[in-house]
Amino acid sequence: MNKVLIVMGSDSDLEQMRPAWRVLEELGVGYEVAVASAHRSPERVVAMATGARAAGYGVILAGAGGAAHLAGVIAAHTTLPVVAVPIAVGTLGGVDALLSAVQMPGGVPIASVGIGGARNAGLFAAAILSATDAVVERQLGDFRERQVAGVEEADRRVKAKLGG
Amino acid sequence: MNKVLIVMGSDSDLEQMRPAWRVLEELGVGYEVAVASAHRSPERVVAMATGARAAGYGVILAGAGGAAHLAGVIAAHTTLPVVAVPIAVGTLGGVDALLSAVQMPGGVPIASVGIGGARNAGLFAAAILSATDAVVERQLGDFRERQVAGVEEADRRVKAKLGG
Amino acid sequence: MNKVLIVMGSDSDLEQMRPAWRVLEELGVGYEVAVASAHRSPERVVAMATGARAAGYGVILAGAGGAAHLAGVIAAHTTLPVVAVPIAVGTLGGVDALLSAVQMPGGVPIASVGIGGARNAGLFAAAILSATDAVVERQLGDFRERQVAGVEEADRRVKAKLGG
Amino acid sequence: MNKVLIVMGSDSDLEQMRPAWRVLEELGVGYEVAVASAHRSPERVVAMATGARAAGYGVILAGAGGAAHLAGVIAAHTTLPVVAVPIAVGTLGGVDALLSAVQMPGGVPIASVGIGGARNAGLFAAAILSATDAVVERQLGDFRERQVAGVEEADRRVKAKLGG
Amino acid sequence: MNKVLIVMGSDSDLEQMRPAWRVLEELGVGYEVAVASAHRSPERVVAMATGARAAGYGVILAGAGGAAHLAGVIAAHTTLPVVAVPIAVGTLGGVDALLSAVQMPGGVPIASVGIGGARNAGLFAAAILSATDAVVERQLGDFRERQVAGVEEADRRVKAKLGG
Amino acid sequence: MNKVLIVMGSDSDLEQMRPAWRVLEELGVGYEVAVASAHRSPERVVAMATGARAAGYGVILAGAGGAAHLAGVIAAHTTLPVVAVPIAVGTLGGVDALLSAVQMPGGVPIASVGIGGARNAGLFAAAILSATDAVVERQLGDFRERQVAGVEEADRRVKAKLGG
Amino acid sequence: MNKVLIVMGSDSDLEQMRPAWRVLEELGVGYEVAVASAHRSPERVVAMATGARAAGYGVILAGAGGAAHLAGVIAAHTTLPVVAVPIAVGTLGGVDALLSAVQMPGGVPIASVGIGGARNAGLFAAAILSATDAVVERQLGDFRERQVAGVEEADRRVKAKLGG
Amino acid sequence: MNKVLIVMGSDSDLEQMRPAWRVLEELGVGYEVAVASAHRSPERVVAMATGARAAGYGVILAGAGGAAHLAGVIAAHTTLPVVAVPIAVGTLGGVDALLSAVQMPGGVPIASVGIGGARNAGLFAAAILSATDAVVERQLGDFRERQVAGVEEADRRVKAKLGG
Repeated sequence: MNKVLIVMGSDSDLEQMRPAWRVLEELGVGYEVAVASAHRSPERVVAMATGARAAGYGVILAGAGGAAHLAGVIAAHTTLPVVAVPIAVGTLGGVDALLSAVQMPGGVPIASVGIGGARNAGLFAAAILSATDAVVERQLGDFRERQVAGVEEADRRVKAKLGG
Repeated sequence: MNKVLIVMGSDSDLEQMRPAWRVLEELGVGYEVAVASAHRSPERVVAMATGARAAGYGVILAGAGGAAHLAGVIAAHTTLPVVAVPIAVGTLGGVDALLSAVQMPGGVPIASVGIGGARNAGLFAAAILSATDAVVERQLGDFRERQVAGVEEADRRVKAKLGG
Repeated sequence: MNKVLIVMGSDSDLEQMRPAWRVLEELGVGYEVAVASAHRSPERVVAMATGARAAGYGVILAGAGGAAHLAGVIAAHTTLPVVAVPIAVGTLGGVDALLSAVQMPGGVPIASVGIGGARNAGLFAAAILSATDAVVERQLGDFRERQVAGVEEADRRVKAKLGG
Repeated sequence: MNKVLIVMGSDSDLEQMRPAWRVLEELGVGYEVAVASAHRSPERVVAMATGARAAGYGVILAGAGGAAHLAGVIAAHTTLPVVAVPIAVGTLGGVDALLSAVQMPGGVPIASVGIGGARNAGLFAAAILSATDAVVERQLGDFRERQVAGVEEADRRVKAKLGG
Repeated sequence: MNKVLIVMGSDSDLEQMRPAWRVLEELGVGYEVAVASAHRSPERVVAMATGARAAGYGVILAGAGGAAHLAGVIAAHTTLPVVAVPIAVGTLGGVDALLSAVQMPGGVPIASVGIGGARNAGLFAAAILSATDAVVERQLGDFRERQVAGVEEADRRVKAKLGG
Repeated sequence: MNKVLIVMGSDSDLEQMRPAWRVLEELGVGYEVAVASAHRSPERVVAMATGARAAGYGVILAGAGGAAHLAGVIAAHTTLPVVAVPIAVGTLGGVDALLSAVQMPGGVPIASVGIGGARNAGLFAAAILSATDAVVERQLGDFRERQVAGVEEADRRVKAKLGG
Repeated sequence: MNKVLIVMGSDSDLEQMRPAWRVLEELGVGYEVAVASAHRSPERVVAMATGARAAGYGVILAGAGGAAHLAGVIAAHTTLPVVAVPIAVGTLGGVDALLSAVQMPGGVPIASVGIGGARNAGLFAAAILSATDAVVERQLGDFRERQVAGVEEADRRVKAKLGG
Repeated sequence: MNKVLIVMGSDSDLEQMRPAWRVLEELGVGYEVAVASAHRSPERVVAMATGARAAGYGVILAGAGGAAHLAGVIAAHTTLPVVAVPIAVGTLGGVDALLSAVQMPGGVPIASVGIGGARNAGLFAAAILSATDAVVERQLGDFRERQVAGVEEADRRVKAKLGG
């Protein structure tokens, strides 16, 4: 099974990115976590991106804030799918990170989840793997069913609380 | 080889979405195009999403403008990867479509390319397929090489024009 | 008398939505509260929307945050009036929820109150019912009169505080 | 049957508001159109708002651009439901009109459709009337069915064009 | 000497508006403070606006948040200069109040200070009065001189702190 | 009677500023027009601002686009009221000019009309003068009456057009 | 004398970047123009950035649109000053390019001129060189004087046009 | 060696600007700090700007918030490179300061770092000096190497924490 490579631009992004691997663990998907900055350690990013396919990764998640170039710089050095996780740092609520990630010019694609969407990025990575991996597909199916049950449970909780 | 399903919310989005299948054709990747609206024909969208995996699709591209719910509604009914293409309609330049697509709440992921990024969406779909398909991988590699050559050619053109 | 159906995408929206039913209680209008997610439990949303008219509802309020598709998905399955309540979650202050709700493409209408405007949504629901219900009309008239008195009271308080 | 009162702040908004009554005509709903400005002819607006219920209106649509106060000023003088139609004038694409309309403070509600959403405002007005009017309900149901057929037709058109 | 009328839409705006009269007191300019809401007590606002000139006011300051219609509604009923003070309430940081105030359509002018700019609104009111009142002019001149001295003092403080 | 000084940052702003003096002419208010740039000819701006009061001006209008510092720089050198007219140049629709003008830090006030609001700036200048000038007051009153009549005329035109 | 290296991400940016070298020619400053894309030809960008100092450049201008990573990627490979020129492409008016360029995380600086500000970027490059080059300093001084004269000329033109 | 002049509009900006001189000290670059306001003490700003070159400065950093005119006003009085540091004050997160600084009209250039980017402004100033100063160049090179090591250290820390 292909694994997921999770790169973040700074270890200050750790807590915001943690939901990505949490959900991958819940789904039984293999992953690796690394810190590498598109600006402060560019060679490291290039090396990771270039070698990712051979190292057995099937998708790369890249979390960064501000002028979030990480996903784009990785995508410039691999043809694997690269998913951006815009992180809200500073005063703009992550709008800068979202636009810096998502508005890639034609020819080198990345796709972005929402601001702070690390958990969805993990789920999206699993979805990618699920296209050719029946185990992950089944895991995702089960995950969705638990989720439906969770909403129904919340509905009961709210009605009990209000209802009387 | 898995195919790519391309859905658009209205046939007025046709020209903006065309680059998606153009680039898939260039890469030799199979695809199908459909019109279905999350709001005006929701049953149709649900049927497509639910049946997409069995029909041999490995990734779904969803192009829509305004309150662009199409990608999210599809993702609610499949665990395949769903990629949004925000289309600029009306007066907000596509910011509404981008936020409506990308800001999905946790649990049901989509990932978005940039506003009007149909071509990159096609390339991203190919990247997804490339993770388990050596032919697509090679096609993408060749595509990138042609692209490097294109930039070098542009550089020569500009220098010739300004220069001597 | 028609009742008001209040749906929220998650029970984490409970406190932000509570002013909607508080004001309906103040006005003596019947209502029901439910949790259902356009993405995590779509069948549930469809069932509610489809059955709402027969169940005696005259208007539906839908509170959701982020890519707030709830109102639109409900409106796709009923011709009752659906009013969105954009909830501010995450870092964008609810701009994402507002645009995701209000910018509906032509043919399937919703109308939106302001971000976090649950109380006004309750009042708007009562206004809808008042058009054919003299009791609600009178209740709303009394409400407005109390409100005028409240402003006058505030004016006196401020003048006393600054003045004397 | 209650009628719909359509007010616009200036006759330069005529073309942008026209879809509102076009769709009401298509649905067989009665309406009246008036020009009145919250700022340039405030007495006129107050008179209209105050008398609207007695004149047999069940809902008021208010189209205005810029600092679009029209819906709010009308709502301050009636307890009927008032629906804002933000019009894009000037250079901000209607964001000013949307926020000026939708962000009403608590106590006096309005609800807004999207920028330039006159057609949906007409449909929303019909939805309000449909809650107590079986004829309008049936008209809206038929409208939705024609709409589904329209999407299917568009799908066939696109497939024919691309396909064979 | 003409006085300044300071109106706020709600007594919850009191602390944000207080700098307006503080600076007027510092300058020896007469003022009155009132609470009146363009939406919740419109008649009161109209009465104030209509009578302001006869009551000896030369300028009106209007502080409001959200869909801040107060300044515009006042200006619709007087030809005195009306200055808006956009107040930041809710989650949009006052952008809604700024646009709702400043983007007035042609024919009924208001002018706006910055978000939360009550103190500058007071100074601007004084500037208006100063055009025909030599006492206020002198007061403003002295105020500016104290201000220059304050900057120089801050410069010395910073240099002392960093310096020696 | 005090006159109005109208300054613009560049003669390319001429057409956008023209409505300011057009309306002043209509009202019989004296004015002067000048070109001076806060950045390209700062001494000129300072000289104008410093001498404005002695030259018989009672209010200054300052039209500029982009990083619109003109009103602020003028206000730094006079205690007369300075009204900014944000001009839309470039690609941001004048949001840059609006924020650059309106968000002045405390101590040096300006007030801003809306983007491209030259006509309202002229009316606002007249409103300022009207506070101590009965002729201007009467002119403004007549202007408003003509305006009410204009709205009524527009209402009749629209009704005739639609009506039948 | 150090030269200026002007890089643009695509030859479609040529016309928007041309004012940069036009003004450098006017000032007699040496420059070179190149096309290189941070995403489509990253090695080329790295090579240019790494070798720029040795090649006699004292400042680098980088023009790019959308997710404008070019300046940041160059700055990651050189300690020379890198100035971004955000180009407006697509539907967001260059806000994406501005934020992608300017919001660089700490440790690798770039500085940005305004959207479409190629001419000012050229002037800023000259200002950098002027700090240690008396010829450029004098050229810039003369440029400013011509500019003051130009404003005065515009003022005369406007007065003649309106005036007499 | 040329020094760096750091100006801030108010001593309340002290903590946000401090990283600028901290990093200059780390690099052994000379600097001076001053408080001067473009609006409250304009003569002081003009004097500083006019005399900066003769006083041995090679670059000026200008930190200000709101309608941040400081950098532009300085640049109007010197041909030295002026770098803006937009400070987030008030409720707009510094967007007002960024646009007020960066969107300078043609002819008088400034360049801006990101919002709150004082540390990068210090580094950018050093980069400017480094173009003609081998000592600073070497210091910047060492700084970058320490930075690469820092990222690698962060990577090890994260892996140790998550890993084994």
